[in-house]
Amino acid sequence: MDVYVSGVGMTPFGKHENKSLKDLLVEAARAALHDADYPRIDAVIVGNFMGGAIYNQEILGAIVVNDLNLGSIPALKVEGACASGGIAIRQAILGILSGEYENVLVVGGEKMKHASTETVTQAINAAMDNQSLEKNSGLTFPAFFGLLANRYFFESGATKKHLAYVAKQNRDYAVNNPLAQFRKPTTIEEVLEAKMITDPLGLFDCSPITDGAASVVISKQKTGIKLKASVQVSGPTSIQHLDSILKIPAIVESGRKAYTQAGIGPEDLDVVEVHDCFTITQLLAIEGLGFAKELEAWKFIEEGETGLSGKTPLNTSGGLLSRGHPIGATGIAQFIQIVLQLRGQAPNQVDNASLGMAQNLGGTGAYSVIHILERV
Amino acid sequence: MDVYVSGVGMTPFGKHENKSLKDLLVEAARAALHDADYPRIDAVIVGNFMGGAIYNQEILGAIVVNDLNLGSIPALKVEGACASGGIAIRQAILGILSGEYENVLVVGGEKMKHASTETVTQAINAAMDNQSLEKNSGLTFPAFFGLLANRYFFESGATKKHLAYVAKQNRDYAVNNPLAQFRKPTTIEEVLEAKMITDPLGLFDCSPITDGAASVVISKQKTGIKLKASVQVSGPTSIQHLDSILKIPAIVESGRKAYTQAGIGPEDLDVVEVHDCFTITQLLAIEGLGFAKELEAWKFIEEGETGLSGKTPLNTSGGLLSRGHPIGATGIAQFIQIVLQLRGQAPNQVDNASLGMAQNLGGTGAYSVIHILERV
Repeated sequence: MDVYVSGVGMTPFGKHENKSLKDLLVEAARAALHDADYPRIDAVIVGNFMGGAIYNQEILGAIVVNDLNLGSIPALKVEGACASGGIAIRQAILGILSGEYENVLVVGGEKMKHASTETVTQAINAAMDNQSLEKNSGLTFPAFFGLLANRYFFESGATKKHLAYVAKQNRDYAVNNPLAQFRKPTTIEEVLEAKMITDPLGLFDCSPITDGAASVVISKQKTGIKLKASVQVSGPTSIQHLDSILKIPAIVESGRKAYTQAGIGPEDLDVVEVHDCFTITQLLAIEGLGFAKELEAWKFIEEGETGLSGKTPLNTSGGLLSRGHPIGATGIAQFIQIVLQLRGQAPNQVDNASLGMAQNLGGTGAYSVIHILERV
Repeated sequence: MDVYVSGVGMTPFGKHENKSLKDLLVEAARAALHDADYPRIDAVIVGNFMGGAIYNQEILGAIVVNDLNLGSIPALKVEGACASGGIAIRQAILGILSGEYENVLVVGGEKMKHASTETVTQAINAAMDNQSLEKNSGLTFPAFFGLLANRYFFESGATKKHLAYVAKQNRDYAVNNPLAQFRKPTTIEEVLEAKMITDPLGLFDCSPITDGAASVVISKQKTGIKLKASVQVSGPTSIQHLDSILKIPAIVESGRKAYTQAGIGPEDLDVVEVHDCFTITQLLAIEGLGFAKELEAWKFIEEGETGLSGKTPLNTSGGLLSRGHPIGATGIAQFIQIVLQLRGQAPNQVDNASLGMAQNLGGTGAYSVIHILERV
């Protein structure tokens, strides 16, 4: 498709006590506009999940338009739980393809650290169907993915140590990412001994609560970074509708469609970001997207294949686990890491990366969005 | 533009104690799909404002897709405060124009009646900028529009009685609309004597809290109802940035652009729905969209020009004031009334209506969305 990336920008991820959600969005957007050399913007699309619920702030599209003095251009917020950022990018691409827009500013962000963990946990639960068995049983997101992890151990032979490898590798990458939330090195022992959140997931197995924003400019005009695929799928919102809880249909289906659209296979990708809200989710994404065989992602990681010199350098930004997970920003931050890799400007640069992919998950599998980018 | 409306459907508006937000959305969507004769749907776009804040329910796109068994098609929620419904329709149109989709199901809804008035008022305040003077001064939406009404009285010579004419005419229309929230006839006296909400706006001057949903199918394939214009603009989110508080820039600008896009003037329209969250807002829309001169909308109404045999039959559905205002559904319900008018199937049918317009406002002027439809 004749759609390009002309600019990227993001705030540091972490705690921003003295910045509002607007401040964060505008800071990231300004950086992306600067990087794009200030094209005329025709629309703004904001990715955000819980601005209304925990910060009493909606109308983020118009707020960004006004603060950046972009005139009276159309603007909106899109929501798809943790996939809100990826969906925002896809809506921008459709806007370009429609012929209505030439440059769309996408910005996603979240302000979460001011709220209690209880408040945030409750707000995240809005990403489950109120009428589902798991929500009515009291499952939270860590509990849901903990359940999957236990089943994964049972079926695959993997152990908690293999989840720790995921956490450790993400942290190793984040140490080199100046915008990541957690840059302090860790050890397998520290990960294994950390506070239990929900069996078998400990503190390092869970993505954190984060403030932050990320932004990209999507354009009709040619740049060095081209969209090769933009795919979004929906999946069951309830565990009882899954054939196997270890194969999240939205992940598998989005991968299949994205490879078909791009005319490539998983082995062709030089660098990948997947949605690892929990360590177990990274394993399921590695398998669901075809980088490793079913129930073998833990071996793939153990053998170093997700490292910089492995088959599939993965989550070189630090991933959701260590780069941080300001929900509406996440899909955009993943996308940015791939853009930087293709430009040769990334933290944890992969040598000569020319084809990359970002995969963004929403809910417990309600949505999966994939963008494949190539250097041209 | 080669974009058409192939189906419409909505729930009754009012109180739905025993239906969830999902139930309402699905009921409206099923009606629209039936009306469209069940085309293959390629994407779902949901308009909703406060599902997360007061009902702990997001991921509405995927929920609708799953409940309707639509496969793994893309879905999302869009938010633009009270313009969420109009924005959802516009995103569907862009999706068709992009070439990615042939039929898009749009559904908007809100579940509000279970919550206290205080909770709803607080949630609606998310449609103001947290850093604006009015929000920090404690203004709510009724107070904001009350302020505008007082200024309007001062500048125009209109009185509270002229607002009552708006409320009364809307109610007269709603009496004939089987899906409207308020179908009991009223009198000017009853309107004038009703409980004061915020000076000078009484109970009948304010749109109600409503449960309900509305849905349309937007298609590439030709039907008898064609899109002639789809326009969305952003405006100042803060009163201190307005030149005059009686000219809401988003309304004026959206009208100007829509008439240009359609190649028509306001006098060419056979039937119109405008966003009357308050009686005063209907007056400002009538002026801002060019149906009456500045500060003369009250005379326009007094002279019967918004009646069925007037120059501009207006809000024949009963408007937000009497049809009801389930926020995410509102822009879609307005659009449906215009479709029904052009099909000759509307409550309060305008003879031989062939060109109609729906205008949907978000926040205190953060957004205005206009769709112009023609019978072909």
